Amino acid sequence: MKKQSRRHAEENDDFVDVPVRVRYADTDMMGVVYHANYPVFFEIGRSEYMRLKGFTYREFEDMGYHLVVTGLEAKYYNSATYDDLLTVKTRISELQSRGLTFHYMIYREKTLLVEGTTKHLCINNNKKTVIIPPHLLNILKRCQN
Amino acid sequence: MKKQSRRHAEENDDFVDVPVRVRYADTDMMGVVYHANYPVFFEIGRSEYMRLKGFTYREFEDMGYHLVVTGLEAKYYNSATYDDLLTVKTRISELQSRGLTFHYMIYREKTLLVEGTTKHLCINNNKKTVIIPPHLLNILKRCQN
Amino acid sequence: MKKQSRRHAEENDDFVDVPVRVRYADTDMMGVVYHANYPVFFEIGRSEYMRLKGFTYREFEDMGYHLVVTGLEAKYYNSATYDDLLTVKTRISELQSRGLTFHYMIYREKTLLVEGTTKHLCINNNKKTVIIPPHLLNILKRCQN
Amino acid sequence: MKKQSRRHAEENDDFVDVPVRVRYADTDMMGVVYHANYPVFFEIGRSEYMRLKGFTYREFEDMGYHLVVTGLEAKYYNSATYDDLLTVKTRISELQSRGLTFHYMIYREKTLLVEGTTKHLCINNNKKTVIIPPHLLNILKRCQN
Repeated sequence: MKKQSRRHAEENDDFVDVPVRVRYADTDMMGVVYHANYPVFFEIGRSEYMRLKGFTYREFEDMGYHLVVTGLEAKYYNSATYDDLLTVKTRISELQSRGLTFHYMIYREKTLLVEGTTKHLCINNNKKTVIIPPHLLNILKRCQN
Repeated sequence: MKKQSRRHAEENDDFVDVPVRVRYADTDMMGVVYHANYPVFFEIGRSEYMRLKGFTYREFEDMGYHLVVTGLEAKYYNSATYDDLLTVKTRISELQSRGLTFHYMIYREKTLLVEGTTKHLCINNNKKTVIIPPHLLNILKRCQN
Repeated sequence: MKKQSRRHAEENDDFVDVPVRVRYADTDMMGVVYHANYPVFFEIGRSEYMRLKGFTYREFEDMGYHLVVTGLEAKYYNSATYDDLLTVKTRISELQSRGLTFHYMIYREKTLLVEGTTKHLCINNNKKTVIIPPHLLNILKRCQN
Repeated sequence: MKKQSRRHAEENDDFVDVPVRVRYADTDMMGVVYHANYPVFFEIGRSEYMRLKGFTYREFEDMGYHLVVTGLEAKYYNSATYDDLLTVKTRISELQSRGLTFHYMIYREKTLLVEGTTKHLCINNNKKTVIIPPHLLNILKRCQN
């Protein structure tokens, strides 16, 4: 049941899509994107996700808040190479008052290359864990549905 | 006189413009883009320059050629920060049978941030310096005028 | 019982320690090491692990084999900053005929900053999954005990 | 005459040597170190230069000063690849009250790979150009002789 509803969510495409062009700098001597560059693509994904939902992470930081990364997971299925045009699909898979999880799927056309998640905690400028400001939490909640 | 004609060239905008959004990963603890990331923006500039002129650097490599970097210069006038939307302006400032020089100007709106050049030599898969294939040289020559 | 023996293993320090000095380039505008740079420190960890066990990953590639990354996990407990001298502790936590898992713990003095794993598959130059060459598998098996 | 004395200086090795092991992450799909990673090696060079001369750049920043990069030049003569052990040689080639130039030569054994310079201005936390604090300037002056 749970599985079904999750699948459903994915099909409904609550994902936000962002194009990323692979740079020469992203490749390594195997001729493919170095694995540790995909988490940077995840970062682009969540930045653009937030922008499209109506606020920017930059504004969030200007208000004195940060979403620090506390966890990272990635599974690598296929490789990308220089000049490939990828699509980073991003959604919020879990939302709590003090943190959230982003879920990413990176495709080249119909081929899934990498899937991953990042977990974040909301902290203030004093590096103290705090509650996500209510009006942002509301925006994020709406995103999740 | 020389100066005038060069200035003229710039005003005529033989530059190709490419937008680059600054990633969090690009910044350093001074709160600005780390200086060694601008040469990566230069790379984006020349990749898109070539694409817009009618061939891609990827095709160029698939044909067995490479434009290796033999020189790099950059002058830093102003800094950029996270989420800034920059414009990388790229043109060919010098073209020879075996190599060329790209010239870049990176702006945030009207503010010049960084100006630089990269020098390249054409080599083949055996790492031997060779003449740029004629039909590509012709495309590049047309670009320069 | 399982837990005990694992704990035991860790205390016995089957980990190989490698020092890593944080570069300015590694930091981001929060003033700390950007989260996606730790997987690069993991790479240093497993490179030096192999070197200390008697072969280098470079030789491994020269022989026509690669250990591609198929999975990455990291948990972030504390942050590092510019010029910090870190210790990357690396061990093999799982070894199979066609792949293995490395386990990493990154410390600044006694403080655990990041813990993670990378999963790898052995492929040949034709990108086909293959059995790890026996004499290397034997070296790795010895490491694990 | 000038040339001679400069050559002399170089032979006398006022350069500080720092080893750098090439990471897989540093390479690109040409199988060599991506050109824009050498400026990061320059950064390691000047960090260790200062440490060996008796103060660290971290302390310098803690005191409220920064040496921002205003210019970068690099010439590429030979390439390095994964696992190569390089030597970054660093010296101060020019010293003024408000700024300085570092000069770098990167070798693999006897082979010169890359030579370059970085120009820096001293600024304070308000991003205002200032005079390098006297006791540091004195240390740097001694280095130069």
